[in-house]
Order: sequence, then structure tokens, then C-alpha cells
Amino acid sequence: MSPSADPPPCELHHLSLLISRISSLFSLNFLLSISSISQQKEAPEMAKNVGILAVDIYFPPTYVQQEALEAHDGASKGKYTIGLGQDCMAFCTEVEDVISMSLTVVTSLLEKYGIDPKQIGRLEVGSETVIDKSKSIKTFLMQIFEKHGNTDIEGVDSTNACYGGTAALFNCVNWVESSSWDGRYGLVVCTDSAVYAEGPARPTGGAAAIAMLIGPNAPIAFESKLRGSHMSHVYDFYKPNLASEYPVVDGKLSQTCYLMALDSCYKQLCQKYEKLEGKQFSISNADYFVFHSPYNKLVQKSFARLLFNDFKRNASSIDEVAKEKLAPFSTLSNDESYQSRDLEKITQQLAKPLYDAKVQPSTLIPKQVGNMYTASLYAAFISLLHNKRDSLVGNRVILFSYGSGSTATMFSLKLNEGQNPFSLSNISAILNVDKKLKSRHELVPEKFVEIMQLMEHRYGAKDFVTSKDCSLLAPGTYYLTEVDSLYRRFYAKKDGESEKIENGVVANGH
Amino acid sequence: MSPSADPPPCELHHLSLLISRISSLFSLNFLLSISSISQQKEAPEMAKNVGILAVDIYFPPTYVQQEALEAHDGASKGKYTIGLGQDCMAFCTEVEDVISMSLTVVTSLLEKYGIDPKQIGRLEVGSETVIDKSKSIKTFLMQIFEKHGNTDIEGVDSTNACYGGTAALFNCVNWVESSSWDGRYGLVVCTDSAVYAEGPARPTGGAAAIAMLIGPNAPIAFESKLRGSHMSHVYDFYKPNLASEYPVVDGKLSQTCYLMALDSCYKQLCQKYEKLEGKQFSISNADYFVFHSPYNKLVQKSFARLLFNDFKRNASSIDEVAKEKLAPFSTLSNDESYQSRDLEKITQQLAKPLYDAKVQPSTLIPKQVGNMYTASLYAAFISLLHNKRDSLVGNRVILFSYGSGSTATMFSLKLNEGQNPFSLSNISAILNVDKKLKSRHELVPEKFVEIMQLMEHRYGAKDFVTSKDCSLLAPGTYYLTEVDSLYRRFYAKKDGESEKIENGVVANGH
Repeated sequence: MSPSADPPPCELHHLSLLISRISSLFSLNFLLSISSISQQKEAPEMAKNVGILAVDIYFPPTYVQQEALEAHDGASKGKYTIGLGQDCMAFCTEVEDVISMSLTVVTSLLEKYGIDPKQIGRLEVGSETVIDKSKSIKTFLMQIFEKHGNTDIEGVDSTNACYGGTAALFNCVNWVESSSWDGRYGLVVCTDSAVYAEGPARPTGGAAAIAMLIGPNAPIAFESKLRGSHMSHVYDFYKPNLASEYPVVDGKLSQTCYLMALDSCYKQLCQKYEKLEGKQFSISNADYFVFHSPYNKLVQKSFARLLFNDFKRNASSIDEVAKEKLAPFSTLSNDESYQSRDLEKITQQLAKPLYDAKVQPSTLIPKQVGNMYTASLYAAFISLLHNKRDSLVGNRVILFSYGSGSTATMFSLKLNEGQNPFSLSNISAILNVDKKLKSRHELVPEKFVEIMQLMEHRYGAKDFVTSKDCSLLAPGTYYLTEVDSLYRRFYAKKDGESEKIENGVVANGH
Repeated sequence: MSPSADPPPCELHHLSLLISRISSLFSLNFLLSISSISQQKEAPEMAKNVGILAVDIYFPPTYVQQEALEAHDGASKGKYTIGLGQDCMAFCTEVEDVISMSLTVVTSLLEKYGIDPKQIGRLEVGSETVIDKSKSIKTFLMQIFEKHGNTDIEGVDSTNACYGGTAALFNCVNWVESSSWDGRYGLVVCTDSAVYAEGPARPTGGAAAIAMLIGPNAPIAFESKLRGSHMSHVYDFYKPNLASEYPVVDGKLSQTCYLMALDSCYKQLCQKYEKLEGKQFSISNADYFVFHSPYNKLVQKSFARLLFNDFKRNASSIDEVAKEKLAPFSTLSNDESYQSRDLEKITQQLAKPLYDAKVQPSTLIPKQVGNMYTASLYAAFISLLHNKRDSLVGNRVILFSYGSGSTATMFSLKLNEGQNPFSLSNISAILNVDKKLKSRHELVPEKFVEIMQLMEHRYGAKDFVTSKDCSLLAPGTYYLTEVDSLYRRFYAKKDGESEKIENGVVANGH
């Protein structure tokens, strides 16, 4: 469609063609949409302050200490605990999987907040743990709702590595803001079991499921315009060996891809903020930063990288001392800057006080449970809610979601007090993170390895029954009992008293 | 091709086009400033008439005749052609897969409509053909956009059997209506290769990829409030054998699940219409019905089933003759009604004239290409656009999407003329369905079986190069050249002239 191929009938037409090449047919529809906006008559009103009303997390009660694993693996002391920055790693035994964990956490959230299953109008799952290549995890969760007569629930599974949960969350928020919203709640589930073949990546596993209730007037509201994404075609971590649960992973490449995506998203977000607000954005403009956390060391590097970004952008967040120390690195190419150990060291030193204030409160669960893939970022956010509770009122929290392959978004949440049961203090009381962490059972590395071997054998298998041993599970936990000869999976729920909750508010919340 | 698709004469209205195109240069700023202002006051206004602006389809040029396959398989004459209602079945050879097909169709849509890749702000894929369990098909498509400097594109893959495309479509429409919309286009891709193990399900395969451009003021607009879903936990068709491309399928159960979901969705949709409009909904209230089409016979049964629903609801669409003929079936339980051959026969007879008018125009591509999983419903819709073109202006089209497992939604589209290049007549001209079907290459069943055997061997494999034989592919088609020892996939594009298109409008129609 080159304009020279067809002589223009008149000058005006010629101009129009030229401009159309620049604006690429975008304009007409856009103008029409603007004119509809200005009509302000029939356009339906959009729900306000849409975001997260409530949240719950489940992780397996079984874990291994990273220190013990180091010794067992013959790794140098501190390789996992300091090198990766991890404390413990949770894992599923043969009675748990991503389906059982999501059944557990959804049931738990509905019960604890007193939500009628009929009030859910959309349910989306983010996961990269494939048990079936066609049937979604969402359809397994429908068992909870079908028995209450509710089958009118939109949404399926979103998939791209650790980013699927963020995609599901955005989809759910958009639904509430859209004309197809029917006034009911959305529900987002992130569920994953991260396991690696024996070798250097094995200590970066973990497992968890998170459920988030979505609706308007939320205590955790989206600042939807403040968002930057970076999506590209890379092979840093992927799962092409369909018969194996383990990924193919290039750890060094994946770290660089993560940091490149971080730079790109931060740049986008800053630009959008500056257009909206007419002033520069820097790390000073957010109270907390929450990162997808494959292992804590990368989170430390990431925040330091934002500081380096601010330095390169000449942002006001960088004081004179820092400027001086970073000056020698100002001429590095991007590629060089990802590889420079000196830069990494100096930026981390400079960022340390801010890291302690703005990032460290979100690191608890990722360090204690490990990489939870789609659930990792939200487990970090839950750690922040747990640690800071209603002191977060009025705060802006910036989240960075990364999924290998790769897909990444940096986005912003604005926190307010909310109203019971959807208040920050009630949410953190219901989460009860300390109790969840303390009531776990440590297994020795030998037992962990033995379980991994059984799980390898079971992956994709049919026609077996599990031990049905749920002695380590808390009451109310779902567990896998059987996979029949047609690969159909059966689950049971461990009976017992749940915590006493009235009207969705923890009676003795603190 | 109607004259409205020709380049407009140089008149005064051209000036407004010119102005609109200049304005669009500032579009993103403009939108952001408007939202910023409205955020300060009240909720932002929602984009209107959001829907499908443009659409393109790609299917492999290689197919087998169902009649020939019947004879080859030793099946009784008419088993596939009349029993299933199918004419031909397309399939991928070793050089094509869901990734290559989606690269082809996205590139084609952007080129044919003159869309700048920078103007895409969201890209979502629906598919149930898993090549990698973690890395999304969307990330492969990012190759198209990265080279134009656009990596800020939200969205990942949506998965649940044949429903993933509908989920992606809803997500994209909701995004445009949400506060996170940045004024750019959305793009939805449905891509699947449906293959079955030797046996009764094998003739129900097919393959295709569809791309749909999403935005406001669309010629194909959503009636978002007119929608009913039915989601449940069933094992009618699933893919638990991770090492095999073939599904586990219970054909009879799947048909019943499909019809149960159809009943439930129709009931929901009718109830919602009645609440909104204060009057009864029946099949008379829509001009066309488009069904997900695993095979045509099920589409015939489905429309007949809607007629039976109207009979049970005592709807005005059922005349006295029909009432009399259906009276003996009024006392059947639901379960009985799904099994009754007599009921099936009589409802199909009664529905025949309406089927011919309201359904048959959407059956062309599904009968010629086969089941395209996520793309099937939209291939049926494209058949309708192809057959009815701008006579569809003012029409309501009801679509029924079904994905095993199961997830289903019935929803409504309202069609209007649109404006070039996004007009119904230009869309059908660009689709050029007749040419696409006619330029295919028939292969004999023996060759088809041989290719299926090779594909079985290749599924999940690494370290091979393909024949790179693209002699049967049209110019502009992407094809697979190699999968290396790390499972990384490489594609090339067949060179050659594309069709001559100016300003996104087909110059000489069809």
C-alpha cells in the first residue's frame, strides 16, 4: 500500500494517504470513540476502585531446610541460603497437587469471608503446572460451585510460565470494569508446584496456591493507567519435554531476561506516570516494591537495578554520594551492565537502606516457601500485607510480574482501609501467615529426594491410588486419592474444625 | 464487492478524515489526559460498541476428502459425510503447526488491513494444542512485534479445550472497555490442530488459525449483557496423556455434555434478555445462530435442541403444528430427552426450514476444513460473513462456544455496516474464503495416514530438521524448519507476492 503505487486523485487525498501511513488507520475509530466519550449519554458507568477485596494462601505443610539441602547436596555452605537467599522450600507430597491446593484455598477463602458461592461470576486460574493439556484447572474448581447450583461463571486458565496469575488478575479486574460485568465477584487463583531435576536449579522449587477475590471499592485498588509491559520471544525457561514435569532452564539467561524486562517495564511505567502527572517518577514515588521471586537474591538485584535506572534517568531519588559512586558505570552498554559484578555490588550496597524499608517486608513467604511460580508475586504481596497491615493505608505498591518466555508487567496498587470483612486489618488477620508457617513439618533432604522420585514416576501416570495419608495436612485440606485407568483424578477433603470465624471477620483479629 | 469498498472520492468529508488522522497522532496522550481528568472526578467513560473490527483465517492447503477417508477406513458409505455431516478435513503436514499458522494469520491480518504493529496493545491466544507447557504461543507471536519496537503488549494464552479462543476474545473486549485500555487495538488469535488416534474419532480432525482485531465502534459489536455460561467438571474429552498429541475422548458423553451446556446457556441468555427487555426471548429474536462445530451433525442437533427448548418454554416461535408433534415428548426427563432418537428426528425435521435460513450459512468452513477446536466457532462465523456480507447489517447473531471439560458460553453480536477498512463488505472481500478453499491440494488417505504417523513420531521430539518443503504453501506462509537439540523451534516465511491491497481495502473485490 505505498502511496506512490497509485497516483492520488487530488492533493488532499495525497495528504490524507501520507498521514494515514503514519497513523495507520488507528484514527477514525479512535476519534469515534472520543466523540462517544464526549457524548456522555448512554455509555454505561464503570465500576470504581476495582481491585483485590480479599486474599488467602495455601502452601503444603511439608518443607525442607535450605541449609540441610546444601549439606545433603554437597554444595558449598551458604550456596542456597546466602547465594540464593532462601530459607526453606515447600513441596507437594504424593497426596497434593495444583488441583488439590487450589480446591483448598478457594474453599478456605469463601468460608473465611462468608462468601456465597453463588456470588462468584468469574473464576480464572493462572498456572504453569500442566496436569491436563486441554481440561483447565478451573473446571476442577467448578465442583465447589456446581453443588450450590452456580454454573454461570466465566473464565478459564491463563498460561505463560509464572505470569499466568497476573494475566488472570488483569482479566478479572477488566471484567468488573466492563459492560459484561453482572455485579458479582471475580475470583483469581494462582496455583503451582515448582520442581526441578537434580542439579543447581533444584533448590529453587516451591509450591503454593493463592485465591484473590475481585470487585469494586477494594482496599487494594488498581491504578490501571500506571502499567508497563515487556513481552518477547526468548528461551530462558520452558517446558518442551511434555512427558517430564521438569523445565529446560538456562539460569543465567533467565536472570538477564528478567532484568531486561524489568528495565523495559520500569521505563514504560515511568513514561506513563510522567505523561499523566507531568512530573518525573522515581523509586521515591512508591512506598513498596514487590517482585516475582524465583529466589530472593534476584529480588535484591532487581531493586538495585531500579536504583541504577533512576541514576541513568537522573532522577531525584539518587543523592550526590550515589551519583559519584555510580559515575564510573554510566558509560556501560546495557549488555555490559547486566554482566558487571561491580555494578551489581555497588548498586546493592547503595540500595540497602531502601531495600530494607521498601522491599524486605514482602520477602517473608517467598524465602520460607520458595518459588511458587504464578503464586510467587502474590505470596510476596501477602507477606507485605502480613507485615505492614493497616499501616499500608494510603500507600502505593509497585508490583513486578515476570514469566519466562517471556511476559512481564510492572503495575501499581493503591491501598486504602476498606470495610470489613474487606479491610486490610481483617485480611491480614485471616491470612494468619505466622500460624501457617509455624504449623509446618520439616522433612529431611533424604525424604524430600525420595518423594521427588515417586512424583517423577507418577507424573502423567494413570491407574494408581495414593497412600491417602493426610496426617500432616490441616483440617479442610483437599488431597488426591486416586487416578483411575482413564486418568480421571479423585480428591477428598480432610475433615475437622476450621478456625472460628463470624461474618467473615476474625473474632480476635489483631 | 460493493462500490462502498472503493477508495472514496475527493470530497469534503475527506477533510474530516484528514483531521481525524492528524488527531490520532496525539491519540495516546489525548486518551491519557482524558482519563487522568476523569479519574480526578468520577469513573472514566467506557468505550462503546466494542467488538471485532477485522478478521482473517488461515487453514493448511492440505486436506483429505471425507468420502475417500470413509472408503479407506472401511467405514460404511456416508458414515463421515452424512453421519458426521463433513465434506473435507484439513491437516498440518510436518512443516506446519499451531505456531506457524498463527504467525501466518497475524501477519496476514496486519498487512491486509494496513495495521501498524505498534498499534497493537493486547494480544491473546486461545489454543489447546500444547507444544510447550510453559512458554505461550503469544511469546512466539511477539517476534512480529518486537522487530517494530513494540514489546508493550498485554495478554497471554487462554486454555480450556475449544473454548480458549472465546475466553481470549472476551478478555480482549473487556480490556477495551476497562480503565487499563490505552487506546490501541486488541488482537485475538485462535489456533489449533485437531488430530485423533486411528479409530472412530479420526475423521473429526481439522486445523486452522484465526486472527481478530478488537476495538470500539466495531461492525461486529458485542451485546455484552446478553450472555449465559455453563461451566462444570466433566471428563468428556481431555488430554491427560502428556506424551501424546491425541486426546482421551468419550464421544457419546461429549455430545450429551455439549447439549446440556447448550440448554443451560440458552436458559441463562433467555432469562437475561427477559430481565433486560421485559419480554420473552426465542429463536425468532436472532437472525443467525452459530455453533462450535466438532462436526456438522452436532450443529444440526443443537439448533433442533433450541427449538425443543422454545417448545418447553412455551415460546411464540413454536407454531401449533410443532406443538402437536412435540407434545408426546413434553414429559421426558432431561436425561431421557438427550437420549431419545425420536425426539432428535422430529425436532430436526421441524427445525429444517429455520436451520437452512439461520444456521446453514455458517457451516461452510467447518464442513470443508473440519474441527478447528478454538477456531471452529469463529470459522463458522466467518462462513456467515462470507455468505451474507453486508446483508447482515442490523442483524443479531447468537454464538455458542463449547470447550470440553467443560466450559461454554452463548453470547450475542450485533452487526452494523462499519466504516472502511472495517466494514462488513471489506471484511468478507479480504477473507476471500472461496479462493482460500479452491486453492487447496487434496491428498489421498494413504498420504494422510503416512503424515499422521510422522507427526506422531515428531510430537514432543527435538533435534530434527523438517523437509522444508513449502511447495504447497501460499506465499507469505510461515513454516517450521527445525527443532534443535534444546527443543528450540525455528520458522521461515515463504517469499512471494501477497495480494494487492491498498489502505486496507481490497481494490478489486472478489
